[in-house]
Amino acid sequence: MPKKDVRGCVMSRKPIRDREWVIGAIFANRAELAKSGIHTPLQAGISGSGATGAASIVLSGGYEDDEDADDTIVYTGQGGRDQNSGRQTTDQVLIRGNLALARSRDTGVPVRVVRGHTLHSDYAPTEGYRYDGLYRVVDYWAEQGKSGFLVYRYRLRKCYSGGEVESDENESGTAGTTPPERRQSTVQRIVRDTALGREIKKLYRDACQFCGTVITLRAGRYSEAAHVRPLGRPHNGPDSKDNILCVCPNCHVRFDDRSIVVREDMSLIGSKGKLRVHHSHKISRKHLEYHRSLAGIVDHD
Amino acid sequence: MPKKDVRGCVMSRKPIRDREWVIGAIFANRAELAKSGIHTPLQAGISGSGATGAASIVLSGGYEDDEDADDTIVYTGQGGRDQNSGRQTTDQVLIRGNLALARSRDTGVPVRVVRGHTLHSDYAPTEGYRYDGLYRVVDYWAEQGKSGFLVYRYRLRKCYSGGEVESDENESGTAGTTPPERRQSTVQRIVRDTALGREIKKLYRDACQFCGTVITLRAGRYSEAAHVRPLGRPHNGPDSKDNILCVCPNCHVRFDDRSIVVREDMSLIGSKGKLRVHHSHKISRKHLEYHRSLAGIVDHD
Repeated sequence: MPKKDVRGCVMSRKPIRDREWVIGAIFANRAELAKSGIHTPLQAGISGSGATGAASIVLSGGYEDDEDADDTIVYTGQGGRDQNSGRQTTDQVLIRGNLALARSRDTGVPVRVVRGHTLHSDYAPTEGYRYDGLYRVVDYWAEQGKSGFLVYRYRLRKCYSGGEVESDENESGTAGTTPPERRQSTVQRIVRDTALGREIKKLYRDACQFCGTVITLRAGRYSEAAHVRPLGRPHNGPDSKDNILCVCPNCHVRFDDRSIVVREDMSLIGSKGKLRVHHSHKISRKHLEYHRSLAGIVDHD
Repeated sequence: MPKKDVRGCVMSRKPIRDREWVIGAIFANRAELAKSGIHTPLQAGISGSGATGAASIVLSGGYEDDEDADDTIVYTGQGGRDQNSGRQTTDQVLIRGNLALARSRDTGVPVRVVRGHTLHSDYAPTEGYRYDGLYRVVDYWAEQGKSGFLVYRYRLRKCYSGGEVESDENESGTAGTTPPERRQSTVQRIVRDTALGREIKKLYRDACQFCGTVITLRAGRYSEAAHVRPLGRPHNGPDSKDNILCVCPNCHVRFDDRSIVVREDMSLIGSKGKLRVHHSHKISRKHLEYHRSLAGIVDHD
């Protein structure tokens, strides 16, 4: 199995590699592919669960509704097909692999993509199964497939170092030619939570630490990880659990604006009550103080 | 005044041009700059208001706290300086130009940036005032300036066609070398509402059409424009008022997930009550039907 160290120089538009696998590696068949660990099921096109999201998918041309434009894939969910004819005979439902891919949209964790030689696409390998790197599920929806039955469709975009541009601007085909006021785009919410962010969200079962709100989506609960001392320059906060809160999008906007701040006793300015803190979650008082200072609130010792 | 048609071929990493002005155009002095319309005040560094946001700024080295790294600028707000000595003698406050720039962060509308020859920066022109294109205010905060007094600081990033990458990944300097699970980034919320989106939000005074919530930030009210039929491929919804709703971030996440859908009689599935609709806002029933179909809800005529 081809392996390679992921440490290397950074170039723009370089596909993001997963931990151990080389993009472009070809495996003779599904058994070899499974042995590599890239995609372990021998038959199913989607590996993963509704709880954790999808780990990997294989594009093998089984569904007539798949679309492949290299960097962007529209992948059809599983189920509803007659085993003998391979034809769609009933509606697909949001369970198993379909739910797993939906969950990946919610969590923002990338999915490994493999293309098989049987795929009807210009980007299919001539033989075997090729690992093509990490893609992010950016949207999913139901539609009437060519068969007339309901199928789930997932839009995936390839991940590049420096961040893929998941922008509607790109897709409208008019970027750069339209003055900003006419640009066809709106708020972009790109979920890319860190492993630590996911741990904190799990600890609170996605309930907002400010207001207690739980957002329920079709594939499960949704919350966001907010960094207290911001990550980017010039703040350079750490991605550590003592610097992360579990919040709903509304409170996230206000916390990042510093129109909600947390006092030393965990009471709130700009919101009711106190910050809800799990007994095992140690939040850094230094980072909360830094956050207050960004709002112009200076502590007097 | 140099002018040029904005229609042209699209390249990646091409700076976004404003309607009429050529990036790189140099003006001999502030009077010439004002005449061009790029930045009309003759003295003030910030043009704009708290209601509309900032239209333009001039970097001229007046504030010792400014930082200039070409694509990224940290700009210091106005006020608190002694007129004779030019030294910071009191705290800055979030009013006038400072409030305008804060508002630009909330609205996401880009700001024209001009660099003057007096700026202490490698990117300053050797003479006159140079128009350097559009930048977006991505963050602002208060800090103790070098003087010891509170100053407001604004982080601006240059806009490129195809969308600037306002990613913490870029800023951490480790993108591509770190497996995705370790990546230092979180939910990115990039506000880029269209002019029509802003009109709809104004109509509802930023109250969510689903739940009535109004989010109040330090520089004003905040809401998001949600497109009913999504803009991007493969949905190709229009950026038109009959396809836009004014929503809070929480309902936006759920509406884009289609866990809130609107029935034909404007009652809601997944949320209480009815969609609040202003008498002058005609929402397309076709687009609402399309949105329902994405959730797998098929209307039977």
